[in-house]
Amino acid sequence: MTKRRILVMLRSMYLARVYVTLKPTVNDPQGLTIRGGLHALGFADVASVRAGKYMEIRVDAGDRAAAEAQVDEMCRKLLANPVIEDFRFDLEEAPVTA
Amino acid sequence: MTKRRILVMLRSMYLARVYVTLKPTVNDPQGLTIRGGLHALGFADVASVRAGKYMEIRVDAGDRAAAEAQVDEMCRKLLANPVIEDFRFDLEEAPVTA
Repeated sequence: MTKRRILVMLRSMYLARVYVTLKPTVNDPQGLTIRGGLHALGFADVASVRAGKYMEIRVDAGDRAAAEAQVDEMCRKLLANPVIEDFRFDLEEAPVTA
Repeated sequence: MTKRRILVMLRSMYLARVYVTLKPTVNDPQGLTIRGGLHALGFADVASVRAGKYMEIRVDAGDRAAAEAQVDEMCRKLLANPVIEDFRFDLEEAPVTA
């Protein structure tokens, strides 16, 4: 019982902020549509819009390196399409309660 | 002609990175689905996922304050739904050619 509690205390919650963007050479119809909408609203100075995805992921891990490895693998396997998208993320230790 | 050229040179291109997230109290079925997918792939330590939007907007403006005011107004009018979403953005001066 004591051993189990110690194991729980050694783990931390990490918050990963993941940014997925289309590669620069890939067409972005969603971004073009947003730009069109902004122009129609009078924002004539908008030169370009690129649309992407943003995710906040809470992951329970033993340490920062383990959390980073997990999030990297998640991005490669599910969150981003490596053929047309790039991803990056940052990681911070988060309170478990939040 | 000279006057026109001076006007052009006084303007700069700014890159705004806009993050739109659901307010914390709003249900996020997309995030729940992503979490389900991650669990199915074996990432059992994922506690929660919140999905959001990310946009990179290039805007031509006289100075940083003008660019900031414009992007703020764009977010309020089109990019975010103020009823259920929050937004934030950061701004950097960008090369005009990019």
